[in-house]
Amino acid sequence: MTERGLFVGRFQPFHLGHSFAIKYILEKVNNLIVLVGSAQFSYTWRNPFTAGERIEMIYRSLDKHDLEKVLIIPVDDTYERNYIWVRHVENYTPKFSVVFSNDFLTRRLFLDAGYSVLNVPFYNRKEVSGTRIRQLMAEEKEWKNLVPNGSREVIEEIGGEKRVRMIFQSRRIENFSY
Amino acid sequence: MTERGLFVGRFQPFHLGHSFAIKYILEKVNNLIVLVGSAQFSYTWRNPFTAGERIEMIYRSLDKHDLEKVLIIPVDDTYERNYIWVRHVENYTPKFSVVFSNDFLTRRLFLDAGYSVLNVPFYNRKEVSGTRIRQLMAEEKEWKNLVPNGSREVIEEIGGEKRVRMIFQSRRIENFSY
Amino acid sequence: MTERGLFVGRFQPFHLGHSFAIKYILEKVNNLIVLVGSAQFSYTWRNPFTAGERIEMIYRSLDKHDLEKVLIIPVDDTYERNYIWVRHVENYTPKFSVVFSNDFLTRRLFLDAGYSVLNVPFYNRKEVSGTRIRQLMAEEKEWKNLVPNGSREVIEEIGGEKRVRMIFQSRRIENFSY
Amino acid sequence: MTERGLFVGRFQPFHLGHSFAIKYILEKVNNLIVLVGSAQFSYTWRNPFTAGERIEMIYRSLDKHDLEKVLIIPVDDTYERNYIWVRHVENYTPKFSVVFSNDFLTRRLFLDAGYSVLNVPFYNRKEVSGTRIRQLMAEEKEWKNLVPNGSREVIEEIGGEKRVRMIFQSRRIENFSY
Amino acid sequence: MTERGLFVGRFQPFHLGHSFAIKYILEKVNNLIVLVGSAQFSYTWRNPFTAGERIEMIYRSLDKHDLEKVLIIPVDDTYERNYIWVRHVENYTPKFSVVFSNDFLTRRLFLDAGYSVLNVPFYNRKEVSGTRIRQLMAEEKEWKNLVPNGSREVIEEIGGEKRVRMIFQSRRIENFSY
Amino acid sequence: MTERGLFVGRFQPFHLGHSFAIKYILEKVNNLIVLVGSAQFSYTWRNPFTAGERIEMIYRSLDKHDLEKVLIIPVDDTYERNYIWVRHVENYTPKFSVVFSNDFLTRRLFLDAGYSVLNVPFYNRKEVSGTRIRQLMAEEKEWKNLVPNGSREVIEEIGGEKRVRMIFQSRRIENFSY
Repeated sequence: MTERGLFVGRFQPFHLGHSFAIKYILEKVNNLIVLVGSAQFSYTWRNPFTAGERIEMIYRSLDKHDLEKVLIIPVDDTYERNYIWVRHVENYTPKFSVVFSNDFLTRRLFLDAGYSVLNVPFYNRKEVSGTRIRQLMAEEKEWKNLVPNGSREVIEEIGGEKRVRMIFQSRRIENFSY
Repeated sequence: MTERGLFVGRFQPFHLGHSFAIKYILEKVNNLIVLVGSAQFSYTWRNPFTAGERIEMIYRSLDKHDLEKVLIIPVDDTYERNYIWVRHVENYTPKFSVVFSNDFLTRRLFLDAGYSVLNVPFYNRKEVSGTRIRQLMAEEKEWKNLVPNGSREVIEEIGGEKRVRMIFQSRRIENFSY
Repeated sequence: MTERGLFVGRFQPFHLGHSFAIKYILEKVNNLIVLVGSAQFSYTWRNPFTAGERIEMIYRSLDKHDLEKVLIIPVDDTYERNYIWVRHVENYTPKFSVVFSNDFLTRRLFLDAGYSVLNVPFYNRKEVSGTRIRQLMAEEKEWKNLVPNGSREVIEEIGGEKRVRMIFQSRRIENFSY
Repeated sequence: MTERGLFVGRFQPFHLGHSFAIKYILEKVNNLIVLVGSAQFSYTWRNPFTAGERIEMIYRSLDKHDLEKVLIIPVDDTYERNYIWVRHVENYTPKFSVVFSNDFLTRRLFLDAGYSVLNVPFYNRKEVSGTRIRQLMAEEKEWKNLVPNGSREVIEEIGGEKRVRMIFQSRRIENFSY
Repeated sequence: MTERGLFVGRFQPFHLGHSFAIKYILEKVNNLIVLVGSAQFSYTWRNPFTAGERIEMIYRSLDKHDLEKVLIIPVDDTYERNYIWVRHVENYTPKFSVVFSNDFLTRRLFLDAGYSVLNVPFYNRKEVSGTRIRQLMAEEKEWKNLVPNGSREVIEEIGGEKRVRMIFQSRRIENFSY
Repeated sequence: MTERGLFVGRFQPFHLGHSFAIKYILEKVNNLIVLVGSAQFSYTWRNPFTAGERIEMIYRSLDKHDLEKVLIIPVDDTYERNYIWVRHVENYTPKFSVVFSNDFLTRRLFLDAGYSVLNVPFYNRKEVSGTRIRQLMAEEKEWKNLVPNGSREVIEEIGGEKRVRMIFQSRRIENFSY
C-alpha cells in the first residue's frame, strides 16, 4: 500500500470546490478516503441531504478511473465529544497518513493525533461554498453551475431544491409549533 | 378498525388551539393518536414540561367520551436524524393512515413516507401558540384563558408558571456559569 | 384526581394473564397507566413485537368502557442503567401512587423510590406466560386460546406467528453469519 | 443508473465465501453496495475487527476493475431496534433495488420494507464461515486458505490472529474481573 | 460519615471564584464532591477543556490537606433530559445532603429532588467568570491572574490558550464548511 | 508532577484483592487514578452497585493519608465499541503513564495505545474475586471477611446483600415476565 489521504467534509452538497480539491489531492496521494461527516443528520438547514444522497453525489461526480482509488465513507458526528472524534473516525476508516482539510477544528484534532495535515487550495471560495449554494436554492436562484453534473442529477432526482426551500421557510417561522 | 389519524405536537403546553384541532380531527376520523413529540426533554425554554405532564394536560382536557377513541403516545426526538424519524414514530404507534400537522418538516417527512397529510385549521393563531403562552408565563401576564381547564389545573399543581419564569431568567444570564 | 396505578410489562404478547390482571387492578384503583416496557426493541426472541403493535393489542383487548380510565404508554429500556429507570419512567408518565408488578427488580426499584408496590394474582401462570406463548408460536402449536381476541386479531394482521417462527429458526443457526 | 444491489454482512473476517458471493452478485447487477454491518463494534468474539479493518480487507480483496462498481459502506448496529434498522441503513446508502442475504432476519426486514431479496449461493459453507475461521484462529489452526489474499494481508498487518486468540482466552476466564 | 456537600460546575476553566467557593464550602461541610459537569464535551467554545484536564486543574489547585476531604467526579450532560439529571448525578456520586450552586436550573432541580441548596458567595463576579476568561484568552489578553496556579500550569502544558483562540476564530467563520 | 498510574476495575464490590493491589501500586507510582469502569450500570448480576456506591466503598477503604495521592473516577462502558474505549477513558482522566490491570482486553487496548501496562499480584485469587463474593452474598454465606471495612460498611448501609440476593433470584426465573 502506498500513501493514503483523508479528505473531510460534510458535502451539503458536493460542489465544484470539492471535486477540484479531490483532483488536487489525487496528485499528491495515490489513494483517498472521502469522509462524509455528520452522516446521521438530514432535513436540517446545515445538513439537508442524507449521507446516502451525499455519497451518491460524490460517486456520480468522480471520474470513473478515479473510483478505484477512492473510498467514500460516512461517519457520524459525535455531538461535541470532540476529543474522541479522531479515534471515532479511525474506527470506520482504513489506515491513512495525511489529512486534507481547511477547517480549524478538524486540523487541530488530527494534528494533535499525530497526523500530517495539509490545506486544500480554494476554488472560488466566495461563490462556491455549501452555505451559499443552499442559500441560492432557498431563494430560487441559480446554483446548478456551482456543482458537478453528478450532484445536479442527484439533487434533481430527490427533489433537493424543494427540500432546501421547505427547510428555509420552516426556519423563518422557527419557534412556531402549533 | 376504521380510519385512524395521527396528530403531532409538542404541547408546551396543551392549549385551546390543540383542543380545538382535536375536536376538528375527530369529525374526520373515528380514532386518533395524539403524538407527544420531543418527549425526552423538559425544563428548557422550548420544552419546559415533561412528557408525563403534557400527557396529563391532554388527558384531563379531553372530553370523557372522546377518551376511548384517543391514544396519547410520547415519542422522543431523534436529534436531527430526521430521515429515520417517521419510522421511529411508527415503532411506537399503532397503524394510522392520515396525519394532521401544519409544521412544514413534519408534513414533508410523512408525505415522503406515503401518508395523507392534512392541515389543521388555526384557532386564533396570533394569540394562541405555545411560544406566546410561555412568554406570557415568563412575564407574569395572563395566559390561563388560552388553555383548557385540564392544562391550567396541571400547570398549577406542578408549579409550572414558576418553572417557566425560572428558565426565562436563567436564559437572560445565559452563558454565565460560575 | 383519585388514585392512579401503574401496571408494568413487556406484553410480548398481551395475554389473558395481563387482561385478567388489569381487570383486577381496576377494582383497586380508578385510573391506570399500562406501561409498555422495552419499547424500542422488536424482531428479537424476547421482544418480537414493536411497541405500537403491543399498544394495539392492549387497546383492542380492553373493555371499551375501561378505555377512558386507562393510559397506555410506551417506555424504552435504559440498557441496564437500572438506577435511573424509575425516574426515566416518571418522565413519560402522569403521576401515579401504586405500582402493580410481580417482577423482583421492578418491585425493588419502585419500592426504593418510595412507591407502594402490590403483587398481581397469577392467572394460570404455568400455561399463560409470554415466554411460553412465543415458544408455542415457534413450534406451530396452539396459542390462540391464551390471548384475548384483540391480541389474536393484531397478531394475525401483522403475520406475527410467522415472524416469531422466523426468529426462532434464526436463533438455532445462531452465530452463523455468512 | 442501472440496477444496484446491496450485500449485507459483518465480514468478521471477509472470507472466500464473501468474495465468491460478490462475484456472483456482480453478474446479476452492475452496481453493488457492500454493507459492513455492526460497524461500531470491535475486539469482541463476534466482532474482533474494526469496520475500517474490514473495509480494508474487502478493498484489497476485490478485483481492481470491480472497484469502480462497488461502494463499501459501514453501518452501525441499532442495538435490537430492528424495526428501524432498514430505514437506518437507507440513511447511509445510495438507492438500491435488490438485497442479497441468506440471513433470516435481514431478509425478513428488507422484504417487509418492499425490497426484492435474493439468496446467495453458499461456497463450501461448512468450512468457510466467519465463526469457524475465528475458531481456527483462536486454536492456532490453519485458516489462511479460507480468506482472499487481501484479508490475509490485513489480518497479518494488524496482528489479527493474536487479537482473536487474546479475546478467546479472555472469554474462557469470562466473568473474572479482579 | 458527617455531612457531605456537592459543588456543581463546568470549570471551563477552574478559576479563583471556584477555589474561593470551595474554601467557603469546606467551612460549612467536612466533606465535598466537586462535580465536573458536561464532562463529555471538549474543544467547543463553551467547553474547550476535557473533563480530565479540568480534573487536573482542580486537583493541582486544591490545598494538599483538603484533598482527602474532596472527591472530584466527572458527570456527562444529559442533553436537555433535565428531569432525570439529578438522578443521573446520584448514580455517579456517593450520598450527599447539601448542594452548592448559584445556577437557577441546577438549584431548582436539586430543590425539587428534596435537597438543601445553598448559594455560594461570588468572588469578584464581574471579572472572574469562565466566559470572561475564555474571551480574554481568545483576544490574547491577560487572564492568568484570574485562575489558581494549578489551572495556569495545566492550561500551559496542554496549549490551552492556543486551543481557545483556534475555537474562537473557527466560530467567526462559523457556518463555513468547504 | 511525578509518575501517575491508572488502576482499572469494576469493583463489584471493592474487595481485599483491590485494596492489596492499590497498596502495591502506590509503592511503584506516587499518584494513582482508580478507574471505576462500567459506571452506568447497576442492579444487575455483574454490576449490582452504582458507581457512586463503589466510589464510596473505595473512598472509605483507602488509608486517609493515601487519599491525597488518589483520584477515583467513574467511566461508562462503551457497549463493545472497544476500539475507542481507551480514548474515551482519556477524556475523563488526567494524564497517566502506566496502567495496572490483569484483564487481557484492558491490557491489549492500553498496550496498543502506547502505554506501559503492568500486572498486579493476585491476593488469594481463588477466594477473593467479585464474582465469588457476589455468589456468596446470593447464597447467604460469609463474605464480610473478603472486603475492607469501608466496603462492608457501605454494603450494609445500602442493603447491598439483600439487593444481590434479589437479583440472583430474579435470574433464576429469568425469562419470566408476567
